[in-house]
Amino acid sequence: MAGRPIGDSDPDPWKGRYAARTAGLSASEVRALFAVASRPEVVSLAGGMPFVSALPTELVTGSVDRVLRERGPVALQYGSGQGDPTLREQILEVMALEGIRGRAADVVVTTGSQHALELLAKLFLDPGDVVLAEGPSYVTALVVFRSFQADVSHVLMDEHGLVPDALRERIAALAAAGRVPKLLYTVPTFNNPAGVTLSADRRREILQIARENGILVIEDNPYGLLYFGSPPPDALRSIDDGIVYLGTFSKTLAPGLRVGWALAPSDIRDKLILANEAAVLSPSSFTQLVVSEYLDTADWRAQIATFRGVYEARRDALLAALAEFLPDLHWTIPDGGFYVWLTLPEALDASAMLPRAVADLVAYTPGSAFFADGNGRNNIRLSFSYPTPEFIREGIRRLASVIDAEKAAFARG
Amino acid sequence: MAGRPIGDSDPDPWKGRYAARTAGLSASEVRALFAVASRPEVVSLAGGMPFVSALPTELVTGSVDRVLRERGPVALQYGSGQGDPTLREQILEVMALEGIRGRAADVVVTTGSQHALELLAKLFLDPGDVVLAEGPSYVTALVVFRSFQADVSHVLMDEHGLVPDALRERIAALAAAGRVPKLLYTVPTFNNPAGVTLSADRRREILQIARENGILVIEDNPYGLLYFGSPPPDALRSIDDGIVYLGTFSKTLAPGLRVGWALAPSDIRDKLILANEAAVLSPSSFTQLVVSEYLDTADWRAQIATFRGVYEARRDALLAALAEFLPDLHWTIPDGGFYVWLTLPEALDASAMLPRAVADLVAYTPGSAFFADGNGRNNIRLSFSYPTPEFIREGIRRLASVIDAEKAAFARG
Repeated sequence: MAGRPIGDSDPDPWKGRYAARTAGLSASEVRALFAVASRPEVVSLAGGMPFVSALPTELVTGSVDRVLRERGPVALQYGSGQGDPTLREQILEVMALEGIRGRAADVVVTTGSQHALELLAKLFLDPGDVVLAEGPSYVTALVVFRSFQADVSHVLMDEHGLVPDALRERIAALAAAGRVPKLLYTVPTFNNPAGVTLSADRRREILQIARENGILVIEDNPYGLLYFGSPPPDALRSIDDGIVYLGTFSKTLAPGLRVGWALAPSDIRDKLILANEAAVLSPSSFTQLVVSEYLDTADWRAQIATFRGVYEARRDALLAALAEFLPDLHWTIPDGGFYVWLTLPEALDASAMLPRAVADLVAYTPGSAFFADGNGRNNIRLSFSYPTPEFIREGIRRLASVIDAEKAAFARG
Repeated sequence: MAGRPIGDSDPDPWKGRYAARTAGLSASEVRALFAVASRPEVVSLAGGMPFVSALPTELVTGSVDRVLRERGPVALQYGSGQGDPTLREQILEVMALEGIRGRAADVVVTTGSQHALELLAKLFLDPGDVVLAEGPSYVTALVVFRSFQADVSHVLMDEHGLVPDALRERIAALAAAGRVPKLLYTVPTFNNPAGVTLSADRRREILQIARENGILVIEDNPYGLLYFGSPPPDALRSIDDGIVYLGTFSKTLAPGLRVGWALAPSDIRDKLILANEAAVLSPSSFTQLVVSEYLDTADWRAQIATFRGVYEARRDALLAALAEFLPDLHWTIPDGGFYVWLTLPEALDASAMLPRAVADLVAYTPGSAFFADGNGRNNIRLSFSYPTPEFIREGIRRLASVIDAEKAAFARG
């Protein structure tokens, strides 16, 4: 077996044999640190994990029992590459809450909405293609685009979301360089990581710009139903049925089931089904039927309202703690979702500060993770979805002292 | 919304915007026919669906209840991109039955082993790369390779599996054309679709050839534990720990759970985890914990023995029916798995004959689906896993009369 050592420290015998795209799939530098940050004594404001303990387990147990008792052989068998027909009808009801009218025939169920994004990237992106995205944008979307050798071009976002003029300018600048963006990837509602929401007026304007320029819009909307107070503007897909919409049960039910979906124009839908079949044959029949049974028998709207209450209390705790411990800094104020975007003093580097933070038992995600271009150096994403309000306050107290120490260290040079 | 019609019959407004690889993802011509073939009056020998009704539902229900009661918040939450650590340990026990010794640290859990194959293709295949595979080979592997713009080069297989000299010759012929194959994809045990098994001697020889030529072997082994009579030779991975091994619970438990895995050399494992995270964030915690609980509490070895008995009886029914109704034809004799490979008279075209067969209420998969190069025209894959022995006999009776009619039509010109 010469030439094929398998010890972890030996050189990779397959180096040079990987596809060119694989160079884009490198382990992030903060990965090792996050393993440390999962210790219980660390307050983690890093991950975007939903608080699934707010879901009564009996609701799921009841659904599973009925599925296995009444439709066991179907639940345990291969399904179709498009997903269960009844579940696809029910998904229409979920999307209707955000103003979307569609056909079950245009829904493709995927292994979380993440997989829909991976499949769309596979279907659309040639090496060197340009994807437009908010700056900052969802980190694992950036990983997916990079893994298909596309270039992400960020567009300015403010507290009302993507800035239409900035989008126009970016498209013009790319055109001047001979490049036409293929996709606009956007998380318009309770943006991950920025927490901001695209205003109703801008929604029409952004869609209009995309149409005029032949850019396919991918609307990724995991958080839209988790609003605090009044609902956000209707989804982009409610205005334009020519775009692709991604939804998921990961935040309104449970991510461990891995059930998400795409609603897509028919031609794209056809290709998504084929890509889904190639990738996984069919998404899990079992988890699809469990979700379907849950939607059929549980008061899922009330459960979403429960989640809203949980996350609103945590958002409030985070905002209060920021006002108390870091009053001089700037942060976004989310009306829903999981995230606040914090801006550190210009001199500080959030990635460089992270080891100190973890040593002081608080973790966050550095802002640069959400940019493909090195921006976000002095930003931090704070996630309030998982820790209790008390832990959130304690986490921000620790973060403030870390920032103080880092500022002092910087001042000393 | 000019330029973005969504009606099914309108031209695709995104035509010309798809990635080059997407051209390889076309719907198969037999697809529409298979929709018809799923009607209950049709005896389908086409699909490779396991007979999940042979699994007592209580075994799964019990596992699910315990998982939700005891580890609900973990089962419903995101997991890791590598998969549950306990399940990965248990997978070692499953693989040990086929002589494999590995480390749980080198196992990556995937959404069925199909997804491991998709991820490996993404990691290794640049456009124009060559993948060696048995002729015939698993149809959805061919789809995956094509979807990454690789060329599949088939290697002759006989009743003892891949022919080593044919492999040497194919590599030499490719080298003469300036091409070095990157991967050898093989289903060595109870091959899909041919039903044959690579002999023990040839296993060493094939691995030796791959090593000498720097070709990464991917051993896909969904059927190895489903043997009739004595066990097959140990897995390729038991001989060479430098290869990638793919396993699944789809045939020994239930495909609806979508739990499979790869066992890979550490460097490849690292990249597989990153690719898995990009594609789905993490495989379903819920279905992983259900499988883990099932392995922990059920007599899973006895259940596999039950499956063996079910499939052996069906294999016997198929072979008896072939001897009774089609005595002049040639077919393979599988010692396990799901498939028999039937050779029609030279003059017949199995694809062209399929509409007639479906009209006469029997379905099969045409052999050409299992070749990337147009071969297999007069072959048929018969799957005996799903229909009862009685239906299998009736299906072959119908098939014989379809073949007779087709021969008569051919003789008439």
